Amino acid sequence: MQKNIHLKKEKILTGDRATGPLHLGHLVGSLQQRVLLQEQYDQTVLVADLQGLTDNGHNPQKVSSNILNVVADYLAVGINPSKTTICLQSAIPALSELTMYYSNLVSISRLERNPTVKNEIKSKEFGRSIPAGFLTYPISQAADITAFKATLVPVGEDQLPMLEQTNEIVRRLNHIAQREVLVECKALLSKVSRLPSADGKSKMSKSMGNTIMLGSSAKDISRSVKSMYTDPNHLCVNDSGQVEGNVVFTYLDAFHPDAEYVQSLKEHYQRGGLGDGATKKILEECLQEMLRPIRERREHYLSDKTELIAILKQGTDKARDESEAVLEDVKRAFGLNLF
Amino acid sequence: MQKNIHLKKEKILTGDRATGPLHLGHLVGSLQQRVLLQEQYDQTVLVADLQGLTDNGHNPQKVSSNILNVVADYLAVGINPSKTTICLQSAIPALSELTMYYSNLVSISRLERNPTVKNEIKSKEFGRSIPAGFLTYPISQAADITAFKATLVPVGEDQLPMLEQTNEIVRRLNHIAQREVLVECKALLSKVSRLPSADGKSKMSKSMGNTIMLGSSAKDISRSVKSMYTDPNHLCVNDSGQVEGNVVFTYLDAFHPDAEYVQSLKEHYQRGGLGDGATKKILEECLQEMLRPIRERREHYLSDKTELIAILKQGTDKARDESEAVLEDVKRAFGLNLF
Repeated sequence: MQKNIHLKKEKILTGDRATGPLHLGHLVGSLQQRVLLQEQYDQTVLVADLQGLTDNGHNPQKVSSNILNVVADYLAVGINPSKTTICLQSAIPALSELTMYYSNLVSISRLERNPTVKNEIKSKEFGRSIPAGFLTYPISQAADITAFKATLVPVGEDQLPMLEQTNEIVRRLNHIAQREVLVECKALLSKVSRLPSADGKSKMSKSMGNTIMLGSSAKDISRSVKSMYTDPNHLCVNDSGQVEGNVVFTYLDAFHPDAEYVQSLKEHYQRGGLGDGATKKILEECLQEMLRPIRERREHYLSDKTELIAILKQGTDKARDESEAVLEDVKRAFGLNLF
Repeated sequence: MQKNIHLKKEKILTGDRATGPLHLGHLVGSLQQRVLLQEQYDQTVLVADLQGLTDNGHNPQKVSSNILNVVADYLAVGINPSKTTICLQSAIPALSELTMYYSNLVSISRLERNPTVKNEIKSKEFGRSIPAGFLTYPISQAADITAFKATLVPVGEDQLPMLEQTNEIVRRLNHIAQREVLVECKALLSKVSRLPSADGKSKMSKSMGNTIMLGSSAKDISRSVKSMYTDPNHLCVNDSGQVEGNVVFTYLDAFHPDAEYVQSLKEHYQRGGLGDGATKKILEECLQEMLRPIRERREHYLSDKTELIAILKQGTDKARDESEAVLEDVKRAFGLNLF
């Protein structure tokens, strides 16, 4: 290994809370990117069940029932377990152990100032009853990132404070150890803007039923596209229609393989003469064609959970070994490596 | 095991933060009791290095350098590793993992209301910069207690809120699981009042240098006793002296084997004619006699750290197995037992 150090690929850590099956928003927001990244980078994808519990402590079934759904989603879109380490957070003890060490290096008031957490606490209406695990999850996330010595973390702008928190912990620990035990990470900023829900009103959400899932049936896809928000003032086919805020065109932009064709459709729609029925039909065909093989692969994987579990276990075993090595070094830095 | 369940001994969990060698306050406050308890109970004694880090995150050496001191103290006073499981907190991953699960079942405001933590935060003058690990240490303590299915926890009155917090978590988790995964614990209240420091002014503390350690040299013991606070108004030998608040008598009460003799000394001191030099000489003889074999055994153990580490490792291995079984059951309760 040491000899080939100049060939060593840069390490990426990414993942998803296991609180629901993944949807089209994940596909454009992260999954497609991961399929590309695995060709160039040493990528670890974490199924974050423990993080999923931080706001579902009283409803753990929401998390446990979705772990294999998420893994099947990964495999179905082309995340390749021989190129990407797919692993399960709760089955990697070093992540919890590192969290314990790091939690002594972060103050409660620092956590309360974290803008990402602040917004989430607001939107979840926890009030005074924020679970300790929720307020402190940036520490657990720092454990996830550093446990694999990840230097690149694909995130949206809203997640930048999490990486800042991670790097603060890294610097603090290295300062205590007087050597570089952990490495700082950088954001790999996503260029894709968030995909709106089909009703155009809200952010796409696993739980709000306004979302096309990767495993949605052909019928559900059809129904979702038919109910999609377009231009409310586009009453007659011959009227001039608006493309901005028209969810059908947003989705065509995101998913149709032929950008020139989509551009010509937009112009046609704007000058009048192209009906919403027609644009929806084009979008539906495109989505059906894209999602059919994904759905089929997904169903194939979910039909044999033994194989799915074996794939997850193999990645998890690798992740355990990697993270144990980092934990050992952190314990050595703290002088806690008696045996 | 199942067949002998009616013979199963009740389980005790106790321990010490590894932030300094142990002293006479520990001897009367907990160690002597543990030596007795190990005859009747299944006792686990935890060297709490992780908890020691919760307010020493930036000075881990204070913890790491004291782990073996504490183990040597245990062995020197007669805690027998073949009767008591002596184990190291940081080497038992299940304790960190359980902490992660439990932290989703406890709110930040509940932790902030904990009277024990409140007092400690006040006395440590953390201000706004309480480390997250410190505020949440009652959760980690709940993990320690429940990981060994302890039903009895020897504590002082001031620690009762910690056990209440533990039992809240137990009830919450059992409610979610709809079965008894964890067991509630009861306090084994210590009848011994806190031993004052030699200067009579403060609580005995590992760090304040006003304390006779179990490993103190004969010279240090002598010096400590000579400087001990007595009755400031007892100026002449023939004066009547006060026994209350007189540290020499408090120590004679705590350590002299002959209570009748101590009672006769008290009466003599009160009616006059017994000097502080004489009472101190009696106390010093008693302490020297008691501490000499402890010091010698302690030195013997510290002279061969390999053996000491082997003893700690053996207990830790046993504790790992026990706690893994509980963790497995908690994970099963949350549906997170895929492999």
